[in-house]
Amino acid sequence: MLKEKNISSETIKRLIIYLRYLDMLRKRKIKVISSENITSYLNVQPSQFRKDLSFFGEFGKRGVGYDVENLAGAIEKILGLEDEIDVILVGVGKLGAALVQYSGFKKINVRIAACFDKNPEKIGARVGSMVIEDIKNAGKIIKATGIRVAVICVPVEEAQPVAEHIVKLGIKGILNFTPTVLVLPGSVYVSNVDMASELGNLIYYLKK
Amino acid sequence: MLKEKNISSETIKRLIIYLRYLDMLRKRKIKVISSENITSYLNVQPSQFRKDLSFFGEFGKRGVGYDVENLAGAIEKILGLEDEIDVILVGVGKLGAALVQYSGFKKINVRIAACFDKNPEKIGARVGSMVIEDIKNAGKIIKATGIRVAVICVPVEEAQPVAEHIVKLGIKGILNFTPTVLVLPGSVYVSNVDMASELGNLIYYLKK
Repeated sequence: MLKEKNISSETIKRLIIYLRYLDMLRKRKIKVISSENITSYLNVQPSQFRKDLSFFGEFGKRGVGYDVENLAGAIEKILGLEDEIDVILVGVGKLGAALVQYSGFKKINVRIAACFDKNPEKIGARVGSMVIEDIKNAGKIIKATGIRVAVICVPVEEAQPVAEHIVKLGIKGILNFTPTVLVLPGSVYVSNVDMASELGNLIYYLKK
Repeated sequence: MLKEKNISSETIKRLIIYLRYLDMLRKRKIKVISSENITSYLNVQPSQFRKDLSFFGEFGKRGVGYDVENLAGAIEKILGLEDEIDVILVGVGKLGAALVQYSGFKKINVRIAACFDKNPEKIGARVGSMVIEDIKNAGKIIKATGIRVAVICVPVEEAQPVAEHIVKLGIKGILNFTPTVLVLPGSVYVSNVDMASELGNLIYYLKK
């Protein structure tokens, strides 16, 4: 898929970050922006920014810049974020509970539609406005809703069996918050949020 | 710094992921591993793996593979993770509280040594084994401990002023969990953990 389109996941992630910056500009009532300005705080070269956009068409006017509102709308469309997407979350521990209420997901039009745990003491309890469901009901809920994306934040030793289980139930994309490598069929798209690796990276550069 | 050494932060992050995988192999008592095997589940090409290691010396034996224990030790040394590093955390909301107790940081030998909030109702309360400190005491604690790295998970609108404040107090590296772009002096190293952008990326590819 990536090769066909020749659009890397790095490009897609940058588009989301551009969108976030454009959102900030919208709030500040800034109407037009240059590629130099938009990239100056994002650790991205202006040429990279222009290249990222070039995959999708022509944006901006030479010598004028980019219309903030138009560009934000175009990126939302590219990313398919105009329509709300429902996902499930598995593992309502401390991190899971925090993610259920995380505002950043709402910003990209993602809604956690159901959350699951296997701990009987948690099942039926509330987290924010949601009730924690028994993981045994995941199959039913996935089938009824057609949800294909799951966020996993179970304990690390449960990550692999939980991932295999939900893939069998129809999940096609997993956002993995556990610090482990999931071994799954190639047809499943796994994205890892690796909080420790970001921190390790930061420390490496500070030590040098 | 990056240019001098010609080692990208992508390489460093991959090293941390290799290390995690080697840890799993160690636990499973696997002694020797090929570059094909180590990379097959990590979305990395064997050639990339060998290139990443080549920056730091010679590892592995042609036709034999890599000694798991030796390679893990070497990567820990490269990353400077043999010695425990203390960091502070600012903003003990739901996500902050989850991060204080997040096991992945311990795995890379990072310890959250102090956590801060400005909410009087939180100051003095416990989160895990820690007491939440008044942000007003951050200067004193940073000075006394020599800590240079901070994890920020305050509400998004407070991220910029909080970051500026702790940079004045001596912080040189920030792991930013807020979905915003921090505008700071070039001497400060900022790393963003962007949970929404990973999820957006996942959804983009599933939609195509």
